[in-house]
Amino acid sequence: MSETIQLSLAEVRELSLNVLQTNGYSEAHSKAITDVIVAGQRDECQSHGLYRLLVCVHTIRNGKVDGHAVPEVVDQAKAIVRVDARFGNSLLAFQTGLPHFIRKARECGLAAMAINRCFHFSALWPEVESLASEGLVAMAMTPSHAWVAPAGGTKPVFGTNPLAFAWPRPGRTPFVFDFATSAIARGDIELHRRQGKALPEGWAIDADGNPTTDPLAALKGAMLTFGGHKGSALSAMIELMAGPLIGDMTSAESMAFDASAGATPCHGELLLAFDPTVFLGDRASEYLEKAESLFEAITSQGARLPSQRRYAARARSDEAGVTVPRALYEDLLKLR
Amino acid sequence: MSETIQLSLAEVRELSLNVLQTNGYSEAHSKAITDVIVAGQRDECQSHGLYRLLVCVHTIRNGKVDGHAVPEVVDQAKAIVRVDARFGNSLLAFQTGLPHFIRKARECGLAAMAINRCFHFSALWPEVESLASEGLVAMAMTPSHAWVAPAGGTKPVFGTNPLAFAWPRPGRTPFVFDFATSAIARGDIELHRRQGKALPEGWAIDADGNPTTDPLAALKGAMLTFGGHKGSALSAMIELMAGPLIGDMTSAESMAFDASAGATPCHGELLLAFDPTVFLGDRASEYLEKAESLFEAITSQGARLPSQRRYAARARSDEAGVTVPRALYEDLLKLR
Repeated sequence: MSETIQLSLAEVRELSLNVLQTNGYSEAHSKAITDVIVAGQRDECQSHGLYRLLVCVHTIRNGKVDGHAVPEVVDQAKAIVRVDARFGNSLLAFQTGLPHFIRKARECGLAAMAINRCFHFSALWPEVESLASEGLVAMAMTPSHAWVAPAGGTKPVFGTNPLAFAWPRPGRTPFVFDFATSAIARGDIELHRRQGKALPEGWAIDADGNPTTDPLAALKGAMLTFGGHKGSALSAMIELMAGPLIGDMTSAESMAFDASAGATPCHGELLLAFDPTVFLGDRASEYLEKAESLFEAITSQGARLPSQRRYAARARSDEAGVTVPRALYEDLLKLR
Repeated sequence: MSETIQLSLAEVRELSLNVLQTNGYSEAHSKAITDVIVAGQRDECQSHGLYRLLVCVHTIRNGKVDGHAVPEVVDQAKAIVRVDARFGNSLLAFQTGLPHFIRKARECGLAAMAINRCFHFSALWPEVESLASEGLVAMAMTPSHAWVAPAGGTKPVFGTNPLAFAWPRPGRTPFVFDFATSAIARGDIELHRRQGKALPEGWAIDADGNPTTDPLAALKGAMLTFGGHKGSALSAMIELMAGPLIGDMTSAESMAFDASAGATPCHGELLLAFDPTVFLGDRASEYLEKAESLFEAITSQGARLPSQRRYAARARSDEAGVTVPRALYEDLLKLR
């Protein structure tokens, strides 16, 4: 029997909706989560595709997520919309706030959306990509759980604190990146542990603060940021902006709130959107064209844009569907 | 004779004002530049202290800077102020736009200031620090000249593209960082060349795209970003946001504009400001206190906040003045 199974995107969608609704997510939450799970599987981001359903089910069974929470939109200021997710999943809160957020960005030139008290799905690229599809430049950031030591330190303070960015490219898929400010994703340490493989140097330190390549020692110690003191500074910025600035938990507070349930982290998210047509007026198309010259200077020398690999996967999946490990598929069938 | 000379901050100020005015900067520009030169020397950022006067004089003698340009403030949108520096130095443009920028941030919750067509002084920390002293969270970014290759590439596209950030700390000096997204400052490569020292690995590649530790080969090839593909993505973001988004030059365009004059780069700058009291309302002091817990979690384990070394230097200089190389001092006396 084959180790994998081929599914159409429609089948991925149906399976996801079934699993989520069966396990206590409302129809609205199930749809919002499924949109991103289909996108993740389609783009071959395995950790945010069908696999993530296991996390969603674990979180609602063991954590504090409210599968029926109705997000509340608060008009905080001229350029700020807040969405109180009321301890539901982040994605419905994002969708609910989105039209208000876009309207504010167009009216003011830039705007912020703060999502509060959400169990975060943790992929930021679908959100910034959807803003870019509206012609906006977008940034997004969140804390997570305190697993990462600051540069020069030995004890975890920061989360994996991802930063995502999107730039609209008229007539093309946008320029998008989404990276953790930790040297590597938390899941990669776990993966090395399960496979009995040593970690590369520079990923982690043990509980005494010494560099380690032992995944178990790393899990008991701390992860490191990417890029030394600069990555550490960036991680601190994200912790502050997507935590205290928006009146929500830091990674340490989120971890304490989880109380070892191992659920999806609950915290806030900050998104920023910038409207190039407001910044530039009638010079907008001229300057979006200059951005294309920048991309051309990168790709013409054989370097890759951050989103290229994902878009190639998307083209394949749109054509031929997706390939899923059979074991995962069968686990999910049991959860319907 | 001693190799160094001791100066009071008042003497640094007077020397700076004299040199700038003698060499063609208006009184307003001389004062704006001097404020930052005094701050740089005081904080022992040698490259942005008195040394920088040599660059300012070289730039006005060899470049296209207009020493008498009067910045023009444009009310671009509810949350955007633009300042056209009209090919003058960036600092007077910053000072001129600042009250408008702060007012917009307070009115809208966040705001952007785009400075256009400025010869950039290139230290961003004094600007974000002055925003933090108004109780605002601040970011600043600029391109520079195309010296830095994208990850996976071999040819320079990006500038050293610095990112600065400040977070206000009631009753304390703010949390501030200001780092180049290149692995190292351009000047450090030049310094190694002059001293005949090999570069550390990971700083640069030669003209064929191979890693090099030879400073001369690096200057003919390309610098690398910090943090691999993540630093490269961040550098691209800065290039886009502080270039095309604000209708100004990319690092490649700025370099072409300079036409080998070796002047201070001419380009734009983007600043963002966020008002915590608008984001948080009456919860502001509670959440600024939570940020203090984050800083405490960093410093209590012996790790340093990014700005700590500079503030320690500031305290010394405020007490005892500054120490300057005698050769630099004598060079500057000749320029008065």
